[in-house]
Amino acid sequence: MAYLNDHYLKLTAGYLFPEISRRVKVFCEQNPEAARRLVRCGIGDVTEPLPPAAIAAMHRAVDEMGRRETFRGYGPEQGYEFLRQAIAQNEYRDRGLEIADDEIFVSDGSKCDCGNILDILGAKNRVAVMDPVYPVYVDTNVMVGRTGPADDAGCYSGLMYLPCTPDNGFVAPPPRKKADVVYLCFPNNPTGTVATHDQLTRWVNYALKRQALLLFDAAYEAYIADPTLPHSIYEIPGARDCAIEFRSFSKHGGFTGVRCAYTVVPKSLLAATRDGQRSALHPLWLRRSTTKFNGVSYITQRAAEALFTLEGKAQVRQLIDHYMGNAKVLREGAKAAGLTVFGGENAPYLWAQAPAGLNSWQAFDKLLTEANVVITPGSGFGKQGEGYFRISSFNSRANAEEIARRLQALSW
Amino acid sequence: MAYLNDHYLKLTAGYLFPEISRRVKVFCEQNPEAARRLVRCGIGDVTEPLPPAAIAAMHRAVDEMGRRETFRGYGPEQGYEFLRQAIAQNEYRDRGLEIADDEIFVSDGSKCDCGNILDILGAKNRVAVMDPVYPVYVDTNVMVGRTGPADDAGCYSGLMYLPCTPDNGFVAPPPRKKADVVYLCFPNNPTGTVATHDQLTRWVNYALKRQALLLFDAAYEAYIADPTLPHSIYEIPGARDCAIEFRSFSKHGGFTGVRCAYTVVPKSLLAATRDGQRSALHPLWLRRSTTKFNGVSYITQRAAEALFTLEGKAQVRQLIDHYMGNAKVLREGAKAAGLTVFGGENAPYLWAQAPAGLNSWQAFDKLLTEANVVITPGSGFGKQGEGYFRISSFNSRANAEEIARRLQALSW
Repeated sequence: MAYLNDHYLKLTAGYLFPEISRRVKVFCEQNPEAARRLVRCGIGDVTEPLPPAAIAAMHRAVDEMGRRETFRGYGPEQGYEFLRQAIAQNEYRDRGLEIADDEIFVSDGSKCDCGNILDILGAKNRVAVMDPVYPVYVDTNVMVGRTGPADDAGCYSGLMYLPCTPDNGFVAPPPRKKADVVYLCFPNNPTGTVATHDQLTRWVNYALKRQALLLFDAAYEAYIADPTLPHSIYEIPGARDCAIEFRSFSKHGGFTGVRCAYTVVPKSLLAATRDGQRSALHPLWLRRSTTKFNGVSYITQRAAEALFTLEGKAQVRQLIDHYMGNAKVLREGAKAAGLTVFGGENAPYLWAQAPAGLNSWQAFDKLLTEANVVITPGSGFGKQGEGYFRISSFNSRANAEEIARRLQALSW
Repeated sequence: MAYLNDHYLKLTAGYLFPEISRRVKVFCEQNPEAARRLVRCGIGDVTEPLPPAAIAAMHRAVDEMGRRETFRGYGPEQGYEFLRQAIAQNEYRDRGLEIADDEIFVSDGSKCDCGNILDILGAKNRVAVMDPVYPVYVDTNVMVGRTGPADDAGCYSGLMYLPCTPDNGFVAPPPRKKADVVYLCFPNNPTGTVATHDQLTRWVNYALKRQALLLFDAAYEAYIADPTLPHSIYEIPGARDCAIEFRSFSKHGGFTGVRCAYTVVPKSLLAATRDGQRSALHPLWLRRSTTKFNGVSYITQRAAEALFTLEGKAQVRQLIDHYMGNAKVLREGAKAAGLTVFGGENAPYLWAQAPAGLNSWQAFDKLLTEANVVITPGSGFGKQGEGYFRISSFNSRANAEEIARRLQALSW
């Protein structure tokens, strides 16, 4: 008799975004008039076309695939050398950070990597996450059985939740209790806050002292404007010995539809075997990649490479400036509407407090039905997200301005 | 203290193909002259350019991604409806097989799917594989801890190996012992044999009787020439209640470099919870897909869709005919060289017996050093593969003819 993985049955109903889709769909079906003026800033998906340098590179690569002499079949599972080198050089070595080409693993998405990394980690790790948190970190741990069931607030027993509140600037400090694996995400999704050099140093020191592992999600690093804020965990001394970093081209080059990301696994990074020996994680991740993955489309990899040309860099800068211009418009609009709002200065997300004692889904429903604006309810990101909602800057400027106007027109 | 997944440490040294690469590299460095005449038919990677219909579709899709009005960000994780529909219609419903669009899950590769499917299956399943076997089935089970350590022949305790030999035509019958999950791969990699309707019926009946799950890998179904042989497990009555099917565009449309495959999970397929309830697997796989995956490149999906146009179908047919023409040349060449050879009639792989008492790696080394031909040693596919080697038909016609000549020139 075949058995299913019972841990899946612990997952609370519906991943956040499907539930948003469902409510929007019902509303639109019942209100076709309002549906036409709907503006979405819910899912953090880019809206602007790909940079011309990426488009040109893809056309060239497609042509190569159409000719026998230049056709490419299976590439290296870890990514083509041309892309690993471009990433390591531009994103790390040019910034004074020692990362070798073969410490870069090119993948088809950070969401995949954040989930897949658990494959190489042992069952008895005690895992800590920030709260609010990107749901994928939590759900993938539930799926592999590293938690018990969820309570009424949706918190799973066995996971350590570190509250992020206005009091700690939405950056939880290291706990007194022992955590073996800690997820950090800065610029943060959903709060839009960024940890300072000092704050990350405390985390690195915690990890080094306890031989813990930091899983650092830097998918939004390109949005950091403040030059004093760290873009990479490897800017912190010692991080090569305790951290894996996830990066993505999704929000950097607008690649959500073409799929490319990467994970950095330093060769100096060790973890414990069951009998207490320390052993490198790099060969395990390499083995996972070569056994359970077959690399990213050659065409996509050429597009990603093109983002590192002079032309490509300027076009990426323009994209980021566009979205951060939206963030400014939205932040000012939300403030003028009397909302208390965080983030949006070094991140594409704003984190707004729902006013007048509304909870997150009440604020969602109010914005949907009265302003025809779709946001993301903060409670979908965890218990501490209750009473907040996330506004995304991924939009056209016209839409951002329209949302800012509607926020101000709304009577809370 | 962070712990690694100790199960990875049970994996025997080197996945097959990296070891082949290593030996070839060493030989070429030491013999630059011979290196120039090296012909490869080792890794099963396609060599011919993508069908023109796919190339044209990709150029169009790239252009769409460059304009705001037609740009696409995140797509549905399970694949775009246009592709799921094209697959379900052309590959199943047009052949009288009842498969719904939403039972198709588009992915970036069958290798990934074969590994990832284990995520939704419980830890206590007893797993059976054919021997010889595509190493990914075994290694991914080792990684999740469903086996003990390997013995000297590389067989892992806890896995049930079903010997495939000339005596059973390389199609093992169902065992007397209880297996909960069984991997079947037809046309087979590596032996190139195909199970008949009767043979698959015995397997489906076994699975239905024992409530076991069949994982049917049909990555090479397009190479079946004999009209009496089944292309899909769903041609067998009852299979919707006991089987998941994996298919790929890698060997169908030559997509190894652009990455597209799919998995069929019927909604009627059940598995047991720990407490013996029967529950559907479809929602679990959907949940896994939406949580741990972000879909396949839009551009790639448009290319896959184009393979189902009239033009695309004719071009795919040409591709397959080309490779099967190679198979014929190789089969005849190997026979003329006095080799005993199986497969290659309904599959792109030939399975040859190493003559004169050579083992697989000895045959590999002899072919590499004396004929400068790279094949795949059968022992890399399991204990029963010892004494055999796999010849791949994925090549130019000129290379296939050259290999056939060199096989005959070689003195065994």
